[in-house]
Amino acid sequence: MEKNDYKYSYSRKVAFKDTDMAGVVHFTQLLAYAEEAEHEALLQAGVEPISGKGGFPKVHSSCDYRSPARYGEVLEVCVGIAELSARSIQWKFALYRADQLVCEGDFVTVLVNTKGMPEGIDDALKAMLASLVI
Amino acid sequence: MEKNDYKYSYSRKVAFKDTDMAGVVHFTQLLAYAEEAEHEALLQAGVEPISGKGGFPKVHSSCDYRSPARYGEVLEVCVGIAELSARSIQWKFALYRADQLVCEGDFVTVLVNTKGMPEGIDDALKAMLASLVI
Amino acid sequence: MEKNDYKYSYSRKVAFKDTDMAGVVHFTQLLAYAEEAEHEALLQAGVEPISGKGGFPKVHSSCDYRSPARYGEVLEVCVGIAELSARSIQWKFALYRADQLVCEGDFVTVLVNTKGMPEGIDDALKAMLASLVI
Amino acid sequence: MEKNDYKYSYSRKVAFKDTDMAGVVHFTQLLAYAEEAEHEALLQAGVEPISGKGGFPKVHSSCDYRSPARYGEVLEVCVGIAELSARSIQWKFALYRADQLVCEGDFVTVLVNTKGMPEGIDDALKAMLASLVI
Repeated sequence: MEKNDYKYSYSRKVAFKDTDMAGVVHFTQLLAYAEEAEHEALLQAGVEPISGKGGFPKVHSSCDYRSPARYGEVLEVCVGIAELSARSIQWKFALYRADQLVCEGDFVTVLVNTKGMPEGIDDALKAMLASLVI
Repeated sequence: MEKNDYKYSYSRKVAFKDTDMAGVVHFTQLLAYAEEAEHEALLQAGVEPISGKGGFPKVHSSCDYRSPARYGEVLEVCVGIAELSARSIQWKFALYRADQLVCEGDFVTVLVNTKGMPEGIDDALKAMLASLVI
Repeated sequence: MEKNDYKYSYSRKVAFKDTDMAGVVHFTQLLAYAEEAEHEALLQAGVEPISGKGGFPKVHSSCDYRSPARYGEVLEVCVGIAELSARSIQWKFALYRADQLVCEGDFVTVLVNTKGMPEGIDDALKAMLASLVI
Repeated sequence: MEKNDYKYSYSRKVAFKDTDMAGVVHFTQLLAYAEEAEHEALLQAGVEPISGKGGFPKVHSSCDYRSPARYGEVLEVCVGIAELSARSIQWKFALYRADQLVCEGDFVTVLVNTKGMPEGIDDALKAMLASLVI
């Protein structure tokens, strides 16, 4: 996938705390940036990521780390929905420093109610998310 | 205060993720270690730090950082209660690498119910905490 | 101090990961937000917070927590320098949700070289930081 | 894979800070626990995870999240090496709460020198890691 194939882009500056003693952003923090972008994309589509009705926990994450990100860099975090079914949402994400790929991967999320029980993704929700589908 | 004046001691190994690009543990993570020790001390006294009844949020934290902590070190995190009133608990903490002080400080916590409303610290709870009072 | 007495203001949206099971931002993360604002203020004054020459580790932090911050809120993180000496910088910070105070506190930082050895804060650096002095 | 097929097991108690407002451990923190176990396994094999010579950054991570982990639980973090080549190490990991699977996944790491340049995994290192191979 190319950078422009994603449906939503979120700008994130690397904080000092996000780095580790190797001088680069810790791999878990790159995934946290991707989640921030996922949540912002949901909000843009009119969907609350976490609310009094429930949320979208991850049942899968995967990421390939291509080049390290460093303190002070502003990363472009690109996301989009690769697959949208009645049971889950598969997100694709990629983090860029200008045109250089930092990492890319995917999340699978499900919709749960406040008791953590899975709910189906109905047509109304699918319609709201349609603009994010790659 | 001396190391032996504290009432409870907790051993914590520094994880890679807890370091930053300066090669040392981030200052906020040292406070997180102190909170872990506070919670373990409460458990040892028979008090649940967080439960279906509520918890002990911090209303104050203060810390002096004396020497950096590094990856792989095993820190001794010492805690005790300096002041115990009907309204709040003042904890003192100090983190040591062997006999060298890493940092020392204090927390003030209050007891709240699950709605976040303050509850008094009653005599039964005070009795349970008595063994932690410095 | 009032909100307008600070010299620099930084806007920070609360991420999901920054919350804890009490449903609010963890107290250590509020300090991390304050550090982000400190670093942005330094950059605005033309000073690199961390560079090939060294950085500004904290030797003290203190904070009073007034009201919890929650997921999705955009906090205004206000900072300024309360005292600037040849040996250290004392920052004051306050985090607001609109006009409501979330927390307020201070940091004391020193300048160190890449070996972690303290350096004096010379007149050139003081001049650069002057605009941040409260 | 079964729990006993892994070669190393690490016990990790869930800290309050590791939870999020959904009341469970954040997915990125489960990966951090897996990294702690990876590092402890390396140490047990006589290999420094990060040293003056370099380290083992991740080029890939993948994880399936099966059941949430909660505050205070003691997780058993199981790791082993699934594939060991001249260029990379593929780790498998699984986190358990007693016999219940919390999550399972894999990391691919490479060996780099202090400049971040890849180094081959030579026979001496392979011999040290042999006891961790599944």
